[in-house]
Amino acid sequence: MKSFHVGLIGLGNVGYRVWHNLLTHRELLAKKSGKEIEIKKIAVRSVEKALKQGVPPGILTTDWKEIVNDPDLDAIVELIGGIDVPYEIITEALKKGKEVVTANKALLAFHGQQIASLASSYKRRILFEASVAGGIPLLQAIQDGLVANRFLMISGIVNATCNYILTEMTNGRMSYADALKKAKELGYAEADETLDVSGEDSAHKAAILCALSYRFWPKVEEIYTSGIQSVDPFDIQYAGELGYVFKLLAIIKKHQDSKEVEIRVHPTLLRKDHILSSVSGSFNAVIIKGDIVGDQLFYGRGAGGDPTASAVLSDLVELARYPHMEYNPRLFFADEQTEYKVMPISEIISRYYLRLNVVDKPGVLAAIAEILGKKNIGISSVVQPEVSSFSQGVPLIIMVHDAKEKYFKEACFEISRLPFLKGEPIVYRVEDFHVQ
Amino acid sequence: MKSFHVGLIGLGNVGYRVWHNLLTHRELLAKKSGKEIEIKKIAVRSVEKALKQGVPPGILTTDWKEIVNDPDLDAIVELIGGIDVPYEIITEALKKGKEVVTANKALLAFHGQQIASLASSYKRRILFEASVAGGIPLLQAIQDGLVANRFLMISGIVNATCNYILTEMTNGRMSYADALKKAKELGYAEADETLDVSGEDSAHKAAILCALSYRFWPKVEEIYTSGIQSVDPFDIQYAGELGYVFKLLAIIKKHQDSKEVEIRVHPTLLRKDHILSSVSGSFNAVIIKGDIVGDQLFYGRGAGGDPTASAVLSDLVELARYPHMEYNPRLFFADEQTEYKVMPISEIISRYYLRLNVVDKPGVLAAIAEILGKKNIGISSVVQPEVSSFSQGVPLIIMVHDAKEKYFKEACFEISRLPFLKGEPIVYRVEDFHVQ
Ligand SMILES: NC(=O)c1ccc[n+]([C@@H]2O[C@H](COP(=O)([O-])OP(=O)(O)OC[C@H]3O[C@@H](n4cnc5c(N)ncnc54)[C@H](OP(=O)(O)O)[C@@H]3O)[C@@H](O)[C@H]2O)c1
Ligand SMILES: NC(=O)c1ccc[n+]([C@@H]2O[C@H](COP(=O)([O-])OP(=O)(O)OC[C@H]3O[C@@H](n4cnc5c(N)ncnc54)[C@H](OP(=O)(O)O)[C@@H]3O)[C@@H](O)[C@H]2O)c1
Repeated sequence: MKSFHVGLIGLGNVGYRVWHNLLTHRELLAKKSGKEIEIKKIAVRSVEKALKQGVPPGILTTDWKEIVNDPDLDAIVELIGGIDVPYEIITEALKKGKEVVTANKALLAFHGQQIASLASSYKRRILFEASVAGGIPLLQAIQDGLVANRFLMISGIVNATCNYILTEMTNGRMSYADALKKAKELGYAEADETLDVSGEDSAHKAAILCALSYRFWPKVEEIYTSGIQSVDPFDIQYAGELGYVFKLLAIIKKHQDSKEVEIRVHPTLLRKDHILSSVSGSFNAVIIKGDIVGDQLFYGRGAGGDPTASAVLSDLVELARYPHMEYNPRLFFADEQTEYKVMPISEIISRYYLRLNVVDKPGVLAAIAEILGKKNIGISSVVQPEVSSFSQGVPLIIMVHDAKEKYFKEACFEISRLPFLKGEPIVYRVEDFHVQ
Repeated sequence: MKSFHVGLIGLGNVGYRVWHNLLTHRELLAKKSGKEIEIKKIAVRSVEKALKQGVPPGILTTDWKEIVNDPDLDAIVELIGGIDVPYEIITEALKKGKEVVTANKALLAFHGQQIASLASSYKRRILFEASVAGGIPLLQAIQDGLVANRFLMISGIVNATCNYILTEMTNGRMSYADALKKAKELGYAEADETLDVSGEDSAHKAAILCALSYRFWPKVEEIYTSGIQSVDPFDIQYAGELGYVFKLLAIIKKHQDSKEVEIRVHPTLLRKDHILSSVSGSFNAVIIKGDIVGDQLFYGRGAGGDPTASAVLSDLVELARYPHMEYNPRLFFADEQTEYKVMPISEIISRYYLRLNVVDKPGVLAAIAEILGKKNIGISSVVQPEVSSFSQGVPLIIMVHDAKEKYFKEACFEISRLPFLKGEPIVYRVEDFHVQ
């Protein structure tokens, strides 16, 4: 049997599990790929740590260049994280004729286009199944299983940390701070949680999903991104009473007869009976709506060493199975930027949840309804919960029907200037996955 | 651009949508596959009907042999249904050097092994993504995205007709007969519904899933198969009160340290909060538990012309993308029957729902509990609902903890002979997807 030689760069959470599972599943992988997939060299920062992990000293190096320059390697796997060094590693590797596997969504979101073009001009492949939704074979579904479809929508929960925190806030009635603390204790959040809770990590994944399904790389700055840090347990509770749950969603929609694609990441209200609402804890799930196949949902562990390693290994098997391809139509976005572009957030149409803090006196609701009415925004429900905990004013929750974001925001601005309003309006989008 | 020439046999529900979508997505498919995929010939039974469907007369034939023998065709797509003729078509086509795509689960369940061996000896591929769970790219996930995993379990709802009927019986409190009638009116059930409601269709799909994930073809007769025809709305209601819903599941489990694989199809009680319980109507969903990746769920439309066509087209794209392969490790089960075999149903371990019709007098429960106790079967709950509609006796519902089927069945037999028992015990398995 032929061999397929791999160089691994980075032996952290994911890298170590790639190494480990490749050993424990060696025979199976050989059968399924038709080649002996072997890690011949590993670049680490600390040799000492790697030795403690049981890696034989002969294959270790602290210099990734040794891997990229090794003529005996067919592919490299980049698993160190960060952006600049991985970018250097991957571009060097492609130029040296290596195929590349990475799980690095941040890198791809910022440099995916250049890397893909480079891969294409050197006629090498770059695979990154693990970069979105961990172990779920989602990118593959987009590129292979659902290949015949035009994509109308791809939306879902793609950050395990945020989903864990929101689930805890909902079920355990915790504050954001307490839920974050618990997430860190249990290893569901990193020491620095910023990338996750700010929504940026989800935006990186949205960029990748957009590139694969709509064949253009959006600029990360163009993706409307709002995190979960300021989600108030009050709103989770009120939304719950109205039949909704909070999820941080990445939403990508292509409007028919339009060249604009909606791409946004934000805390979102979902009806409790929607299947995504039952995705709790550290799980991920993504809905794909194809024009032929209709709605599909993919669900599984979106993070963790093993699930992510499962995806990395599947990429290695793909590379091992099929010989170098002169032209790889599977990843065809590199050669072509479609004429699509990102729709400004002001242009999207959504339902909204609006919480106001008002002085409780007659005429309040009428004044608010008038402002919304003038903008042609229909109210679908109003709740004024009885509360004792508000020192000034009372909360008033208004759910509105589909409205263009621009007009709704204008209405909110006018409402915020009403004399009986205390503080700023709190606004969340409500999603029911319609496509226009 | 090179062409990829296809002959289509059968222009029914699925075949027509393959033809139609290939035309409407021509350019997209060319880009994504690197070849112009073109249907050059179609075999139909009625030319007249095909002409009405808008197919140009020049490409029609009523003789499938013309397609199989056409040296200009790269692949054939078999979509006529049935077993004997498709078997002849596919074996002929492989011998003539054609690649094959089919959606025919019945054929594969009975002759998959021979067909796969033949394909392998003629070095041609046979792809059948559409044969299980329609548009959901499930077989691909098993063969590609989750390729690194040993599969611990594959279980789910793989028959849309049954799921629709059970959903109607549950939500609409309908009888089986009424729900079936509605399913037929809405096109969710065929004129002859037997294959679906008997569970046989699900068993065929289970056989295919078993072949791909455990690398052996079980005999269809060895798959324990029980349908939904005798599910009583009473049990749906009582189960509901206990927090469970009825689903027809195909369950495949590989026990660790054992060469035996559980394969069974039957109406099953699932906890209401389990994600599969929210799969309603004509949707399909399958859970895959991999040893590296953990739990995954795939959800979507399991039947219908378009979803099924989406899967057929993805197979064609795969064939068009990658040239003839000398050896295709992706479908490696043909060359090798693993030493696994089907576990007899008497050996499985499950929880159970037991409904008895008893004469309401003291000592009844004690006698039943004693029989179960002697077999070491623990009772988890007992309910005696108040009913007026039972002419003789009252229903008594007992849920038991994990027990070996053999012992539970023995206990049921003893219970059925107690003097105060009216009629046969009604038994359903309760599933929580544990793997031993
Ligand atoms: N963890 C997940 O669940 C997950 C899921 C999906 C995708 N990913 C992505 O996978 C990648 C790896 O994530 P991870 O969780 O495995 O990160 P990690 O645990 O921080 O591992 C990174 C490893 O790379 C090492 N490293 C850093 N710079 C290096 C260099 N120049 N040469 C050699 N080794 C170097 C680090 O060494 P030190 O320990 O000495 O710093 C560390 O061992 C990231 O791009 C991440 O976004 C992770
Ligand atoms: N429908 C679904 O949702 C679905 C989903 C998954 C898999 N499948 C599988 O896909 C296959 C096709 O299903 P379907 O629903 O499309 O069936 P269908 O609507 O009954 O279509 C079968 C077509 O084949 C034609 N035919 C029969 N024998 C023929 C022959 N010898 N030569 C040429 N044409 C012939 C039939 O013609 P007449 O009309 O004249 O009989 C009919 O048009 C089956 O194996 C089925 O199990 C179907």
